Amino acid sequence: MNTKRNVLYLSMATALFAGATVFAGAKTMADPLPSWNDGATKTAIIEFVEQVTTPGSPVFVPVEERIATFDNDGTLWSEQPMYFQLFFTLDRVKAMAPQHPEWKTTEPFASVLKGDMKGVAASGEKGLLEMVATTHAGMSTEEFETLVTDWVATAKHPKTGMLYTEMVFQPMLELLTYMRANGFKTFIVSGGGIEFMRPWTERVYGIPPEQVVGSSIKTKYEVVNGKPEIFRLAEIDFIDDKTGKPLGINSHIGRRPIFAAGNSDGDRQMLEYTTAGAGKRLGILVHHDDAKREWAYGPDSKIGTFRDSLMNEAGTNGWTVISMKDDWAAIYPAK
Amino acid sequence: MNTKRNVLYLSMATALFAGATVFAGAKTMADPLPSWNDGATKTAIIEFVEQVTTPGSPVFVPVEERIATFDNDGTLWSEQPMYFQLFFTLDRVKAMAPQHPEWKTTEPFASVLKGDMKGVAASGEKGLLEMVATTHAGMSTEEFETLVTDWVATAKHPKTGMLYTEMVFQPMLELLTYMRANGFKTFIVSGGGIEFMRPWTERVYGIPPEQVVGSSIKTKYEVVNGKPEIFRLAEIDFIDDKTGKPLGINSHIGRRPIFAAGNSDGDRQMLEYTTAGAGKRLGILVHHDDAKREWAYGPDSKIGTFRDSLMNEAGTNGWTVISMKDDWAAIYPAK
Repeated sequence: MNTKRNVLYLSMATALFAGATVFAGAKTMADPLPSWNDGATKTAIIEFVEQVTTPGSPVFVPVEERIATFDNDGTLWSEQPMYFQLFFTLDRVKAMAPQHPEWKTTEPFASVLKGDMKGVAASGEKGLLEMVATTHAGMSTEEFETLVTDWVATAKHPKTGMLYTEMVFQPMLELLTYMRANGFKTFIVSGGGIEFMRPWTERVYGIPPEQVVGSSIKTKYEVVNGKPEIFRLAEIDFIDDKTGKPLGINSHIGRRPIFAAGNSDGDRQMLEYTTAGAGKRLGILVHHDDAKREWAYGPDSKIGTFRDSLMNEAGTNGWTVISMKDDWAAIYPAK
Repeated sequence: MNTKRNVLYLSMATALFAGATVFAGAKTMADPLPSWNDGATKTAIIEFVEQVTTPGSPVFVPVEERIATFDNDGTLWSEQPMYFQLFFTLDRVKAMAPQHPEWKTTEPFASVLKGDMKGVAASGEKGLLEMVATTHAGMSTEEFETLVTDWVATAKHPKTGMLYTEMVFQPMLELLTYMRANGFKTFIVSGGGIEFMRPWTERVYGIPPEQVVGSSIKTKYEVVNGKPEIFRLAEIDFIDDKTGKPLGINSHIGRRPIFAAGNSDGDRQMLEYTTAGAGKRLGILVHHDDAKREWAYGPDSKIGTFRDSLMNEAGTNGWTVISMKDDWAAIYPAK
């Protein structure tokens, strides 16, 4: 009788312990997400991964269909006080200015050169896009890659003094690694420039260039001095934002993801498209509510706008909202 | 002395044997390309793979940069008497005709419905593109996928009576498998429709949808009865042919391949772009010179045009031209 009771207690303790380790189940393993605080968010993520990858599970998904898409700005790295690609753009304007004397009197270039950020902002989205197109074009793809590679190796964020690629979120790095260890193929699907990201995403996120989807400018093929190359034109080709995200996913991936991560209104359609598919799906949204360790912003921010309607839709659709303040034990990787 | 001489003979025999197994070197392995006849073509391919994958080789290429691109029509499967996607298009016209009474008097639809292929051809490229766009649009991506999947499962080639997906080249299937076994990531880069290929390339070639690059029509995101989907529009978005191939590679892959396979003038720029990169590169061209087992065609063919200038360029650039007649021991997989 005593032995039976002890076995019963042991089973109960095991069950409780299994619950505490959130579906790690029979596998003895270290916590795959050490920078995520225990709680509903972490549980939802681990339950999802366990359920779709456990053979025999009613919602099992074969390896080749384990497609996971991640927004970049605000989801994998910070995006304040402005998208990091805009810092790159401003640095390009300054570097190119000697060859463009006309910029001294042409907006938004003139404001950039005077350091007048309000003047830059006054030129609106059209002015910004023109500035991005101008500074990102007029060279081969390989020359542009070199510019980006050199910039991310040296440029520092004005507030933190860190390299931009150091301002990536440690919990998300762990999530990428954890999902790949479980057979997921991880993609970036970002409004940022596809060729601005590709030179460093493999080193920083473990995501190779062919798994990066982003906005693009037009290109043409040309042979220069007998050497074929791809030349970048100052004309927008595709904006990978909002409804563009599902279209970019369809064009580059050709399957509906089963997991998507974002942080703003620009990710709404990607999460809708992803989670509307059959079977088990997970959409997560990073909510920037940590003014102390990162930034706190939401519906009123021009960068990374997170409207109340998105928060409501997350509730309705069962998307998981990550509180950076409460759910993340660390923000950036330890140096 | 005798012992020494025997050792010498043994070494010579070993060296000869090593030569005969074309750089299989110390590895004991079965022939990875059994449907390729021994000769310069097979040797060039195996030497390339061995050289770029052997650690310490002066032309060693890390796994992540082993990008190999393959044209589809005429390179991985047959393309006569016309591109197989055109057979699909004709079948779509016939299936859709009851809903389009106006087609009885509109070219090229009228000619299709009368079975007048010369009349169809008379409408030229513009007529063909219009017919493709019309029959491939007006539905969601998922509905189109179902149409293609059903068609490839049942439609038979008019001459061979085989399923189209049975008319894939056995030697190329072996090459795909061999290259992947050596760490290559294999991509399709075809003038054919990206969404016409994706439903079956994983099953037939082992190439997943996200590694297929092709021509595309425009799409839009919409929510129908609360379900988000991607709707196909009757408007060309991108033609992945000629100079479009390097652009498609840049857009979807973001790296210059180190190997490219094609069979026609449409692949010229892809091979130029690929083989102009630094380090060891290989470009191969399938030459259809086997009227007995497949088809023989070249400079004068409208489908898969292989001009003399391409043959000359292959010679100048060191591209390997595959004689289907001489280099391939088999054409299609044994049933």
